[in-house]
Amino acid sequence: MSVRGVCLDIAGVLTDSGRLLPGAAEALQALDAAALPWRLLTNTSRRPQTAILAELTSLGLPVQAEQLFAAPRVVADAARARGLRPYLLVHPDIRAEFAGLDCREPNAVVLCDAAEGLDYRSLDQAFALLRAGAPLLAVGLNRYFQGRERLELDVGPFVKALEYAAGMEAEIIGKPGRAMFELACASMGLAAADVAMVGDDVEADVAGAVAAGLQGILVRTGKYRDGDEQRLPPGAVCVDNIAAAVALLV
Amino acid sequence: MSVRGVCLDIAGVLTDSGRLLPGAAEALQALDAAALPWRLLTNTSRRPQTAILAELTSLGLPVQAEQLFAAPRVVADAARARGLRPYLLVHPDIRAEFAGLDCREPNAVVLCDAAEGLDYRSLDQAFALLRAGAPLLAVGLNRYFQGRERLELDVGPFVKALEYAAGMEAEIIGKPGRAMFELACASMGLAAADVAMVGDDVEADVAGAVAAGLQGILVRTGKYRDGDEQRLPPGAVCVDNIAAAVALLV
Repeated sequence: MSVRGVCLDIAGVLTDSGRLLPGAAEALQALDAAALPWRLLTNTSRRPQTAILAELTSLGLPVQAEQLFAAPRVVADAARARGLRPYLLVHPDIRAEFAGLDCREPNAVVLCDAAEGLDYRSLDQAFALLRAGAPLLAVGLNRYFQGRERLELDVGPFVKALEYAAGMEAEIIGKPGRAMFELACASMGLAAADVAMVGDDVEADVAGAVAAGLQGILVRTGKYRDGDEQRLPPGAVCVDNIAAAVALLV
Repeated sequence: MSVRGVCLDIAGVLTDSGRLLPGAAEALQALDAAALPWRLLTNTSRRPQTAILAELTSLGLPVQAEQLFAAPRVVADAARARGLRPYLLVHPDIRAEFAGLDCREPNAVVLCDAAEGLDYRSLDQAFALLRAGAPLLAVGLNRYFQGRERLELDVGPFVKALEYAAGMEAEIIGKPGRAMFELACASMGLAAADVAMVGDDVEADVAGAVAAGLQGILVRTGKYRDGDEQRLPPGAVCVDNIAAAVALLV
């Protein structure tokens, strides 16, 4: 594959359950050595950008702030850029990302995994705003995530609920939506076609990237399950792990 | 139209905002006079069967218990008949319908408009059961209902959320599902093809009935909106109100 830059998912590609996956640090070093710029793209919606950076550093992955695209921060930036006054359905731990936004008399809904804050009243309030024409900005479409003991509900089902209720379509800012892919490529000064996305989620990472014009690489780590490669979009490839993915690229 | 029995929706067909619609009482009398048996079918999920009967009687519509099919009661009967131990997401006001069901170590999920009881924890609990293979019995697919001041979220969006999360399909017991239509026809000793359904909801009442083999009549009262007749299934008809519907049938 011929690329001029790389986007990478974090969980399941570079890390797993708070540990570094084998070859992750070496892979980023190899990209640096080949002068290939890279960005990390995550839909994680229960930790602020600063906490993710701190964790990566503590694991031995030196990542600069401008190399990390965390979907909640991107959602907040989009709301600011468009002058929206969002009704916030967000996890308490990432509320600070939305500091400075005027949320009075809301004219938009932002849905970033509110967890315990998601209840009938808050969803009904969001529904009323959507019915009145407000846009819905959502962090992603993930169905569930690996919790401490079992899979737990992620934000996607609540996006689907509100879309169905109000008869409208959400703007998915994080993966598999286009917005975060486009911002990451633009931050490297590259066209999407010159960038490959490496991920363990065939839908959000790989199909989303290909739909946004990037090249796609699926790794057989993290949430990868046997047979996922049957659902690869045309042109995308599947390799064993991050080391194999980077070997394809440098 | 040639029929041997009739099913009717209540809200928007016979009543509106707690009042009788013009011609409603006369319509039921005309069916009785023509010796056409009839059943009332409602997805109302915030009032028990007994309260619905009492309200109809107080409005001057003498309805016998066996003539009323309220979806929550039908859901409860289905759970009992199948020996299910449901995890109940139901409105507090209809909890009594589920009396006697063993709900320990649940092996099914029942979703009947829990309103304030629907929150992240309860939906996540339902999700875990569905992932483990439990069936999801839902009262209906309604997107919203007319609340006191505005449209409010109904049960349908939560069905869609759980279906998306767990990658499975709910059994819709009330309209537009087949189960309640089939039970109503069976209670009159009639084949579905010999029964017409009269409703104001082109999807839940009319398309649902036609999919279950009944004939379909849409009335231009209640939640009917201009243009709904464009979405009628083949063979179904649209008339102004309950009086016109019954005139077609007797």
